[in-house]
Amino acid sequence: MSQSVQKNLNTIYSCQKEIKTLEQIESLLGWDRETYMPEKGITSRSEQASLTGKLLHQKMVSKRLEDAVSRLSSPEIYSSLSEKDRNVVSRLRKDIEKEKKLPTEFVGRYIKATTLASPAWASAREKKDFSIFEPHLEKIISLKKEEIEYRDFPGHPYNSLMDYFEEGMTVENLDSNFRSLRKDIVSLLGDIMGSRKYEKADFSGKYGVKSQKRIANKVMSQMGLSSNRSRLDVSPHPFTTTIGPDDVRITTRYNKDNPLESFSGVMHESGHALFELGMPREYDNTVVQNSASYGLHESQSRFWENVIGRGAPFWNHFFKNFRKEFRGMKNASLDDWLLYVNWVEPSFIRIEADELTYGLHIILRYDIEKGLAEGSIKTEEIPELWNEKMNEYLGIVPENDSEGALQDVHWSHGLFGYFPSYEIGSIYAAQIYDAMKKEMPGLEDDIEKGDFSVINKWLGDKIYRHGRTMSAEEIIEKACGSGLDSSAFMGYLKNKYSEIYDL
Amino acid sequence: MSQSVQKNLNTIYSCQKEIKTLEQIESLLGWDRETYMPEKGITSRSEQASLTGKLLHQKMVSKRLEDAVSRLSSPEIYSSLSEKDRNVVSRLRKDIEKEKKLPTEFVGRYIKATTLASPAWASAREKKDFSIFEPHLEKIISLKKEEIEYRDFPGHPYNSLMDYFEEGMTVENLDSNFRSLRKDIVSLLGDIMGSRKYEKADFSGKYGVKSQKRIANKVMSQMGLSSNRSRLDVSPHPFTTTIGPDDVRITTRYNKDNPLESFSGVMHESGHALFELGMPREYDNTVVQNSASYGLHESQSRFWENVIGRGAPFWNHFFKNFRKEFRGMKNASLDDWLLYVNWVEPSFIRIEADELTYGLHIILRYDIEKGLAEGSIKTEEIPELWNEKMNEYLGIVPENDSEGALQDVHWSHGLFGYFPSYEIGSIYAAQIYDAMKKEMPGLEDDIEKGDFSVINKWLGDKIYRHGRTMSAEEIIEKACGSGLDSSAFMGYLKNKYSEIYDL
Repeated sequence: MSQSVQKNLNTIYSCQKEIKTLEQIESLLGWDRETYMPEKGITSRSEQASLTGKLLHQKMVSKRLEDAVSRLSSPEIYSSLSEKDRNVVSRLRKDIEKEKKLPTEFVGRYIKATTLASPAWASAREKKDFSIFEPHLEKIISLKKEEIEYRDFPGHPYNSLMDYFEEGMTVENLDSNFRSLRKDIVSLLGDIMGSRKYEKADFSGKYGVKSQKRIANKVMSQMGLSSNRSRLDVSPHPFTTTIGPDDVRITTRYNKDNPLESFSGVMHESGHALFELGMPREYDNTVVQNSASYGLHESQSRFWENVIGRGAPFWNHFFKNFRKEFRGMKNASLDDWLLYVNWVEPSFIRIEADELTYGLHIILRYDIEKGLAEGSIKTEEIPELWNEKMNEYLGIVPENDSEGALQDVHWSHGLFGYFPSYEIGSIYAAQIYDAMKKEMPGLEDDIEKGDFSVINKWLGDKIYRHGRTMSAEEIIEKACGSGLDSSAFMGYLKNKYSEIYDL
Repeated sequence: MSQSVQKNLNTIYSCQKEIKTLEQIESLLGWDRETYMPEKGITSRSEQASLTGKLLHQKMVSKRLEDAVSRLSSPEIYSSLSEKDRNVVSRLRKDIEKEKKLPTEFVGRYIKATTLASPAWASAREKKDFSIFEPHLEKIISLKKEEIEYRDFPGHPYNSLMDYFEEGMTVENLDSNFRSLRKDIVSLLGDIMGSRKYEKADFSGKYGVKSQKRIANKVMSQMGLSSNRSRLDVSPHPFTTTIGPDDVRITTRYNKDNPLESFSGVMHESGHALFELGMPREYDNTVVQNSASYGLHESQSRFWENVIGRGAPFWNHFFKNFRKEFRGMKNASLDDWLLYVNWVEPSFIRIEADELTYGLHIILRYDIEKGLAEGSIKTEEIPELWNEKMNEYLGIVPENDSEGALQDVHWSHGLFGYFPSYEIGSIYAAQIYDAMKKEMPGLEDDIEKGDFSVINKWLGDKIYRHGRTMSAEEIIEKACGSGLDSSAFMGYLKNKYSEIYDL
């Protein structure tokens, strides 16, 4: 290897290390803000975050890094590199190219618009008045259309918006998956609501926080999270954060009326955390050490929260812990509990939706975002369209826009193209479970014993270790035999609900 | 004000803000490492701290800052500045001048020597073998002599070493204070140990951590620390850290056998924290917002821990909380408790020493460091000299060097000139209490009621608000009528122990 190649490689690795380290510091600042920071620390915390962000930006747009990447990308040099170096260089090159597509002055206008939109959205939602948010949303949508032109992806204009979250995903792919998914969910929902077992089990009562904590720690440790690489704390909005490749933390909140909220939340965040802790170590401190997409990350949280954590095999094993911890559940039946855990019901708020109807909330948003991107829907039409679609998909109509088009913070931050990732995660998770069961016929027996070692090994080998060396679709195709496939998800749902609701 | 003056002022304020912000980030990284970080997070934490340190260093030695300070320091510009700007500029100028006295290559050698010395010291202490540490200590001492030449303060060579901790303090001043202090402590110690009440009260037992926590939080809040600007956590080595002017945190550790350890520790750290939180806000994000010296900072922790927290007025009020929290203390007498809290006894380890004998540990170290600085003591003579002085001052002789000259980490880090600050803190604290009592004759009544508001106000007005606009000696002289005065401290000790031991 020539001296100049080595010098350029040193440059890209040292730049990436500084960037990763600053990102980790940013994560710690955020984690502490949400967990332990005294209230009045917020002023200096904002300064600390803003300085870190500024330093991070300087490092990321550094000409030195860009030049080194460009030199290493020339065909004869690139082909002489090791596989690892090639993966890093090509990933960096793509990231830099994407970054450069947006003119600086556009980014300035964009930040200004979303900064103004956030408080307007909060106020609109509080006052249940879409008109307060509308001019801001209008502005953001027009900026998003401008962004589509800069990004200029082939196919549907919405492809340009999805790319940041799901690199390589297309409207064509999603359309075909979501079309059948919507039909199947609506049909299954009807079957469930018409079944003779459609009666909600009653688990109202008081559930002590200490017991909830003990159970949460138990499931974390069973899932394979060790206290020397992770921890669980309390925050108003649960999250997972990576402060280092060996320091990934999750949070939850405890609801005294409902022990499932913290429990499912902890399994969800633990799924994210296991993914982060399972990243390929040979790519420490590089851009490759990350998830290939938001949907793939979400597949890990949903796999544990829903596929494992709402399944009969898991509860066959784990229910005894609930009965032991909570006096009121001493005589509860496992059947009732499974019905409670898998209760299905149309509702207005996405984040409170059950595993089945959740998809309809996503498809509704996807339809609207796609229409906005292509210009077939106007901003002012959103609230009515929202309500019509709620009625069509779920058979219920919001009483006001705070229960409808104003419920999510995403659009006020300019996050268009993000919602599909949530449902992609659910679909991937079901595909992963299918593939695992095919390869390991004894899987459910293991789960019934509370032994997740084969699951951990499978996920480590087939998902975690790829980092960003491939796209999410490639990773899933390699692991499960096909890219995004909603039929696997529907098969999984039908199978589960048929048992529980006696369909 | 001319445009160029304004530009230079902007430069110095924005540089200082970045420096302060990076220092705060550094504090958070350290706080989290000691409190909540999962064990294996240490590798990335070291990278994060090292990057922050590197960025901090770059900002501090920035030519831009130095040039702006130098321009603003020219007499006609300087005299046209506001009082605040003058304070900031002159403080910065002094700091930069001091920083520049040490050649970079010297700093490199110094860091290398102390880096190698730390593990050698730890191993020597563990193996009770001074010879393992000796060559490293020899090297550090020779570097310290070189440093003395660079710093080149007038008077005794040791003045150059003390300056970093106690700007403006001199051997001449300390010699006269420590000479009489040593004589007086030894004499009072003899009186106490010969008194008929010299019998230790028995408070052995088990003290629940929850109760200890509750009491610790109670005293913090009574002292004036509010949970929206501070917090208490657990760490192996208690400390106070400033993460922002409104975010100052303390830690403690709980010993189930001794409730006084956490309680005194919390009062100590709370004293530091109140000082940090009381810094002059008009100097936010400047070098002026800091303590004028280590001794002045220590005066605040010792004022609360010892002067208030071991005094009869405080316990007249607070003892009921201990009796309530700890079942075993239900029938304990206040007299016995005061004897327990103020127990005096010669011992080997400085950090375990009582309020009276502590000074002898410091004077011993001061004597040795001074001798090393002037060349009258050689490195290899330290252990024997230590033991001789222990015998002379305290009447006891360590069995090995781990109980003697190897007990403190300071020298392995190159911290020569630091020890005096601890005792200066005790002396200042007594002077402060004297001045308070003179000005507020009803002070002890307030303390007996658990009302510290007049104390907080006095400390705020006379100590906290000065930051680094004056030297510690100037602050104390202005507040108490004279600079360092060990006779005030002895008067306070004699007064207290006479009551308790019936002298």
